[in-house]
Amino acid sequence: MKTNLNCFPCLLNQTLKTTRSITDDEGLQLTILKKAMKILDSASIEHPPPTIADQVHAMIRKTANCNDPYEEIKKKYNDVALDKYSKYKGLVAESDDSLKIAIKLAIAGNIIDFGVDHKFDLDETIERVLSSELAIDDYNLFREKILHAKTIYYLLDNSGEIVFDKILIEQILLQNPELKITVVVKGGPIINDVTIEDAYYVGLDRISNITFESVSNGDENTGPQRNSDEFIKKMKKADLVISKGQGNFEALSDEPFFFLLMAKCELVADHLNVDIGDFILKGE
Amino acid sequence: MKTNLNCFPCLLNQTLKTTRSITDDEGLQLTILKKAMKILDSASIEHPPPTIADQVHAMIRKTANCNDPYEEIKKKYNDVALDKYSKYKGLVAESDDSLKIAIKLAIAGNIIDFGVDHKFDLDETIERVLSSELAIDDYNLFREKILHAKTIYYLLDNSGEIVFDKILIEQILLQNPELKITVVVKGGPIINDVTIEDAYYVGLDRISNITFESVSNGDENTGPQRNSDEFIKKMKKADLVISKGQGNFEALSDEPFFFLLMAKCELVADHLNVDIGDFILKGE
Repeated sequence: MKTNLNCFPCLLNQTLKTTRSITDDEGLQLTILKKAMKILDSASIEHPPPTIADQVHAMIRKTANCNDPYEEIKKKYNDVALDKYSKYKGLVAESDDSLKIAIKLAIAGNIIDFGVDHKFDLDETIERVLSSELAIDDYNLFREKILHAKTIYYLLDNSGEIVFDKILIEQILLQNPELKITVVVKGGPIINDVTIEDAYYVGLDRISNITFESVSNGDENTGPQRNSDEFIKKMKKADLVISKGQGNFEALSDEPFFFLLMAKCELVADHLNVDIGDFILKGE
Repeated sequence: MKTNLNCFPCLLNQTLKTTRSITDDEGLQLTILKKAMKILDSASIEHPPPTIADQVHAMIRKTANCNDPYEEIKKKYNDVALDKYSKYKGLVAESDDSLKIAIKLAIAGNIIDFGVDHKFDLDETIERVLSSELAIDDYNLFREKILHAKTIYYLLDNSGEIVFDKILIEQILLQNPELKITVVVKGGPIINDVTIEDAYYVGLDRISNITFESVSNGDENTGPQRNSDEFIKKMKKADLVISKGQGNFEALSDEPFFFLLMAKCELVADHLNVDIGDFILKGE
C-alpha cells in the first residue's frame, strides 16, 4: 500500500506526540519536527507509510537521545492486558467456537495503538467485537488453513495487544498441536510495537512450538525490513502468514497473507472499503 | 498569539484540502505539500499562525495557478446564509434584547470556516447559540462601548458568516445611528475569507455609515497585514474594534479589541480556557 499524502500531516502529529512524551523543550521539539519534514520531503510515496514512519521514529530516538519513548506506556498496557488474560482465556475456552472468539479478541486488542491519532477504550472495544460481526470475515478459510498448516509466521503488532495474541496462539495450538510458529517482533523499540522483551514479559516464550525472529525498527542492525524481498520470501515458505495490525497491513497488503486488524485511519478503511473502527479478518 | 507546533500538521492538512479542491493531479499535490513544508521549515513560530497560513495559501494559489480555490464554496455559503437573512433579522427585531441575539447569531455564523479541519452544521450551531450562554461574555461592556462609540473598525472573517455580521451591524446602527463603521475585508481571496466582492454580494455596501478597507491575503499589493504595527495603530484610533473569528483572534489576541468567535481548534480553546465549540464575546 503506497503512502497517501494524508500520511504527511499524520506523521507530523505522531512526531509531535512522541517528542512531547520525551521532552518539554520546545526548541528540541521544533528541531525534531523540522527533521521529520526533511524526511518527508525526501521520502518516496511509492513506499508504504510504515517505511517512512520507521525513518521518522529512528530520527526522533536519535535526536532526543531516547532509546524507547514508549517504554512506560508499553509496560502499562502489557499489565492492563495481562490483568484480563484469565477472564478472556476462560471465555474462549467456554465458547462453542473458541477459535473465532480468540480471533475476535486478538483483533480487538489491536485498538491499543499509539501510532495513530486516536483515544481508545479497550473494554468497550472488546464488548463491541464480541457482539458484532467482522466487517471482512474470511474465517472459514482461515480455520481451514490453521487446521492443515505445519508452519506459521505470526507478525505481532502492539504491546498490550500481544496478550490477546497469546490467547489466540494458544487456541491455534490447541486446534493443531503439531504446528510450528515463528513469531515476528521488532528488533528494537518503535512506538508501542512489540519487542522480544514484551514477548518475554507476557510469557510468549514459555509456549513450546514458538521461535522468534526480529524485523527492523528503523535502526541499523535490528533485522531486515518486514517488507524486504528477503523477508517476504522467507515468510512465504510457511504454510500461513498471520499479520496483525495496521502497520503490518500497510507494509504487506499486496501479499497473500491473513490480516487481522482494526481499521483505525481513513486511508486504511478506504483501502479495505470498510469504516473506521471496523474489525477485519482478511486473507486468501 | 504565537504559533504552536500543532499548527504545522494542521497547516499541512489545510494545504492538502485546498490543493485537492483545485486539482486531482497527485504530482502537483505533492509538489505543493513539499513547498508548504519548506515554508513551515523557515517560518518563525513567534508569529501568529495566520501569518504562516497567509504564506502557505499564497504559495498554493501561485503554484496551482488558481486565484480563488474557494470561489464556489464562498458563493454557496453566501447564498445559504442569505436565505436565512429575513428569518433571523426578524428574530433579532422581535427579541427583548436585540443586540445580544444579533451578537449570538454573528458568533454562530463563524462556524462557516474552511480554514479549520471540521465538519459543521449551521442550523444546529444557531440553535445551540440561541439556547446557551456564551462561554466568555463581556456583553455589558460591549453594549456600553457600542452606545458611546463614534467610530468602529469591524474585521470580517468568512463568507456566509458575513450575512450574520450584516444583521449585527444593522442592529448596532439601530442602537447608535451616528456611528461610522470601517469594515475590513481581505484584499484578495484566501480560503473562504470575505473579500470586497462578498461584501457587495450580500449588500453590505448598501448600508450607509460603512466604508471598506482591505488587508493582505498574503499576495503583494493586497493591503497591509492585519497585525502590522501600521494597521493596528490605525484601528486603535477608532473607539472600538470588533474582530470576528479565529484567524483574526490568533493574529490580534494581544490587542484591546472585542473578539467574537467560536473556538474551533484545541490551541485557541486552550488559550481562552474554553472548550472547542464554545461561543466567545471577549473584550476590554
